[in-house]
Amino acid sequence: MDRTGLLTDRYELTMLDSFVRDGSAGRPAVFEAFARRLPEGRRYGMLAGLGRLLDAIEHFSYDADELAWLQEQGVIGAETARWLADFRFTGDIDGYREGDLYFPGSPILTVSGSLGECLLLETLVLSVLNHDTAIASAAARMVDAAQGRPIIEMGGRRTHEEAAVATARAAYLAGFATTSNLAAGRRYGLPTAGTAAHAFTLAHDTEADAFRSQVEALGVGTTLLVDTYDITQGIRTAVEVAGTGLGAVRIDSGDLAEESHKARVLLDALGATSTRIVVTSDLDEFVITALADAPIDGYGVGTRVATGSGHPTASMVYKLVAIADAPGEPLRSVAKKSKDKGSVGGRKHAFREYDAGGTLLAEWFTGQDAPRPGPGARPVQVALVRAGEVVHRPPLTEVRAFAAATLATLPADARTVAAGPAYLTATLREETAMAAPGTRALIVVDVQNDFVEGGSLGVPGGREVAGRISDHLAAHAGDYAVVAASRDWHHAGETNGGHFHAPGEQPDFVTTWPVHCVQGEAGSEYAPELETSAVTHHVVKGMGEPAYSAFEGITADGERLADVLRSAGVDRVDVTGIATDYCVRATALDAVRAGFRVRLLDGLHAGVAPDSSKAAIEELAAAGVEVAR
Amino acid sequence: MDRTGLLTDRYELTMLDSFVRDGSAGRPAVFEAFARRLPEGRRYGMLAGLGRLLDAIEHFSYDADELAWLQEQGVIGAETARWLADFRFTGDIDGYREGDLYFPGSPILTVSGSLGECLLLETLVLSVLNHDTAIASAAARMVDAAQGRPIIEMGGRRTHEEAAVATARAAYLAGFATTSNLAAGRRYGLPTAGTAAHAFTLAHDTEADAFRSQVEALGVGTTLLVDTYDITQGIRTAVEVAGTGLGAVRIDSGDLAEESHKARVLLDALGATSTRIVVTSDLDEFVITALADAPIDGYGVGTRVATGSGHPTASMVYKLVAIADAPGEPLRSVAKKSKDKGSVGGRKHAFREYDAGGTLLAEWFTGQDAPRPGPGARPVQVALVRAGEVVHRPPLTEVRAFAAATLATLPADARTVAAGPAYLTATLREETAMAAPGTRALIVVDVQNDFVEGGSLGVPGGREVAGRISDHLAAHAGDYAVVAASRDWHHAGETNGGHFHAPGEQPDFVTTWPVHCVQGEAGSEYAPELETSAVTHHVVKGMGEPAYSAFEGITADGERLADVLRSAGVDRVDVTGIATDYCVRATALDAVRAGFRVRLLDGLHAGVAPDSSKAAIEELAAAGVEVAR
Repeated sequence: MDRTGLLTDRYELTMLDSFVRDGSAGRPAVFEAFARRLPEGRRYGMLAGLGRLLDAIEHFSYDADELAWLQEQGVIGAETARWLADFRFTGDIDGYREGDLYFPGSPILTVSGSLGECLLLETLVLSVLNHDTAIASAAARMVDAAQGRPIIEMGGRRTHEEAAVATARAAYLAGFATTSNLAAGRRYGLPTAGTAAHAFTLAHDTEADAFRSQVEALGVGTTLLVDTYDITQGIRTAVEVAGTGLGAVRIDSGDLAEESHKARVLLDALGATSTRIVVTSDLDEFVITALADAPIDGYGVGTRVATGSGHPTASMVYKLVAIADAPGEPLRSVAKKSKDKGSVGGRKHAFREYDAGGTLLAEWFTGQDAPRPGPGARPVQVALVRAGEVVHRPPLTEVRAFAAATLATLPADARTVAAGPAYLTATLREETAMAAPGTRALIVVDVQNDFVEGGSLGVPGGREVAGRISDHLAAHAGDYAVVAASRDWHHAGETNGGHFHAPGEQPDFVTTWPVHCVQGEAGSEYAPELETSAVTHHVVKGMGEPAYSAFEGITADGERLADVLRSAGVDRVDVTGIATDYCVRATALDAVRAGFRVRLLDGLHAGVAPDSSKAAIEELAAAGVEVAR
Repeated sequence: MDRTGLLTDRYELTMLDSFVRDGSAGRPAVFEAFARRLPEGRRYGMLAGLGRLLDAIEHFSYDADELAWLQEQGVIGAETARWLADFRFTGDIDGYREGDLYFPGSPILTVSGSLGECLLLETLVLSVLNHDTAIASAAARMVDAAQGRPIIEMGGRRTHEEAAVATARAAYLAGFATTSNLAAGRRYGLPTAGTAAHAFTLAHDTEADAFRSQVEALGVGTTLLVDTYDITQGIRTAVEVAGTGLGAVRIDSGDLAEESHKARVLLDALGATSTRIVVTSDLDEFVITALADAPIDGYGVGTRVATGSGHPTASMVYKLVAIADAPGEPLRSVAKKSKDKGSVGGRKHAFREYDAGGTLLAEWFTGQDAPRPGPGARPVQVALVRAGEVVHRPPLTEVRAFAAATLATLPADARTVAAGPAYLTATLREETAMAAPGTRALIVVDVQNDFVEGGSLGVPGGREVAGRISDHLAAHAGDYAVVAASRDWHHAGETNGGHFHAPGEQPDFVTTWPVHCVQGEAGSEYAPELETSAVTHHVVKGMGEPAYSAFEGITADGERLADVLRSAGVDRVDVTGIATDYCVRATALDAVRAGFRVRLLDGLHAGVAPDSSKAAIEELAAAGVEVAR
């Protein structure tokens, strides 16, 4: 690898020059790489690039010619040139494992050392992580959408020739089967794949000549590209030339669902029942999902994986979070207060909590002096570099297996391609902070006519709970920065995505229900016992789809509840309403995932059945919700 | 530069292996790089990466270890390994200049040589051109939006670390003033820029300490970042520390229009009247356009330029267009017939036509055996490589000047950031083809009540022309694959983007007009003399905006007229209607730009005034429209 010291922004070196001049380059410091948000609609991100980054940091140095050039350009002075002459990073790096999940606020990488050396790495850290993470985050969704069918990465021609090599690596660790990129195959030991282009067929006198030439070179197990002229004729010719043992046909144009169906029927009719069908042409996680029922055996994905499927960069930033006045002095937290770009100061130790089934429930971190958490929480970070030496360098196959295992800790609904908010937000959790009052919100879940006695899904005790919530509001509305009330708000005349029982079938009262809370009908109104004058935000949910949690809904301004709460500075949430075992449960769990401290207010919720309500309360307690049991 | 031979897709080498085995690797061949379309909403593209590509082609080779690895992997056999042992490209390359405009169909790069050597370059050609062109195409729009104010490229941290260097180069040639990327500065001689990050301020005890340290190192001409804590206080501190000679302040957060206004007022009040204001933070061509009236002196653009402002790849493809049976034999055209991915075969010679003022009117190409065009057409391609030697290597400053000059040949409306169709489409124009009947469309422009005698903008002779168009349709409707009739279709109660005269002002009859053709009112209906039963597509335009050309409108299905015509296979267009000197003129010019052969049908159009109608007809003739004069 070449030296990487110049792959950086000029200001890193001008700042270093100031620090060397004023004597502060040697002060101990901590920087952190994190993302304030995920790309719009994404529920998780997948970290990639760490292995490449650690190699690049080992090669971060300058030779004499480069230092002379930097001086000629007025970037640094003679003293800084001397400081950089034998430079190599000698600090420590801790971070999330490559292939791990990350969320808004996750302290992905923590770089500790002297102010000068940590600062210098900023641009390189961000370039590598932002690129490779964008690729892996898109690729992981495509792998999920493909439901076990292999995907070839073939996007190299759509991106910078070196970014292409990194793209192949990131897609592979996220679960792609192979890559077309030979440099990636050689550099990282990835399996490579690929057969022929349209030019190959066009260069021969006939399609049959082209197929014969390819089969002669690569055997009948090869994949023949059959759409250069006419797909039906192409398939016939392919089977004529290769026989029924032909490995696969590739279709790269047209309506892929229709063409793959026709191809399957034709191949079967020709006796080529084991010949696979591979499709390419502008595929991404959405198209692959739409093709789920087509008789397709494998995919080739190019442009969309190499460009992060609409999000070609991961928007990570690298911030100073702590600094000491001099070597040996204690580190103190620093945080920026810029409008819309604030940050949490201090070195962070990240932890995750899981439910009994191994599903990820929450991710949070403590400050450097905070007590270690109890046994239910698992640490997320590992030591990557110690005193400049890389101490964590797993083989890529291990990274790939870890990525798959970690992705499996997400629930199924966070792994679909449907747009949604981040599955969770990593937040600060400190015992000392717990005692402080904080900024609080109240959520009143679905206190609607259809959910109280006499409604189509009446819950026993619903009217009484409605009255008690009104009493609570009369006494405590002033304690809340936000009072949000949610309503189920279903469409008339349809099943709302299978939420209402189908005509002629009975509801199962687990995932299908009697018709309820239809927009504009009396059943969808707030129960009259609920006094709503203190409600600051009315949230509606379930428009054409099942929606249990108030966090799935939108306000009258079209905002998501989590965004409303964060804008108001809310850090803790009280949950009330109907029904304990369904929508109250889902709302409280989403509040935990969104990073809030959550209480379920005793006596202010009612459940459909005692057993399931008890189970819900235990589940909430395990997830960290404060409940009375 | 390292060897680039492995920066390629596996199938290029497996195909080569077949060609070497069957003896066809040495057949003469021609490949072409082109784009079928521009990114959605873009009116032009700017070619970049050619200089990098030619360097990379010179380094396209394999060493013994690489060839052994390729054999181990089963990619190539021993014979192909021998073929590749001393490989270097020995053919010819012609192409558009780096920095030139391109459009759908433009034959950007033509690679001629043996089938084997041309094929091998595919992946590398596309990687370099697709990446760098995507950057330059976005950057050129940002430069236009900035209206002469300098832009710093600072996107390196948002993209792969080597793509970052290429990004800086492409942005610079498209008109950016400087880059933050030091490797790009060193490698390509680009001017570099940059001052300080928030970490620099946070690392000091006070903001004033940070500013003092920076000014000491870099002088009072530096740019101080003033938004780490509070912008107003930051500016006060900056001027206190640096004095009124401070070079610039940078604002990286908040509402940039509001903050820059406040900053200007404050700087002026403090006497720092020459201190410039530089803004950063998620800028792109749209935000820069929106900030046009703010007192901003320079921009820093990061993420959005490094990611092509929503279009991170240029979607160029590389296709075999001609091949000979053996060395010395004549080349014959080849073309793919795949659904939705067809191509035009043959080697192409591209030409452009301009109006008297130097504005680009059309781009077209002839086949290899077609006669050379007349003196009005200028050739677009230049020789880049001859017998493997690079013969065209202009310095980057020259490329940058050429890019600016070429961009200036576009009319102003193609250089705004507003979304629109490609300004023109490059199409095949052969004298032999001109005699053939082709597939024809008729466009009837704006034959509406308000544009005939008695209407609010009545044109003399309008009713007679309407009747003659009806006669023409009665006799010839069957000759047309498409008969499109357009209508102005303005909004009531508003000026439609300044198209109607403002209340209290008089229309100037050049850009402002009396109220006319308001949706739903009688004036907007077709004139009764026009018989519309043969009309296949009704096009409306001008909804809330001025619109002269029918190509600006949409059909009832929401399609653009140009797309309708292309889908129908139309290659020539007859134009009729009202008014010759306005909407007929604009429609005919757009039809030429869209690549159609255009006739203005004599006697089937009427103009507002004789002089301007005569001038319009002369302009149309100069643009290649067939007219009776």
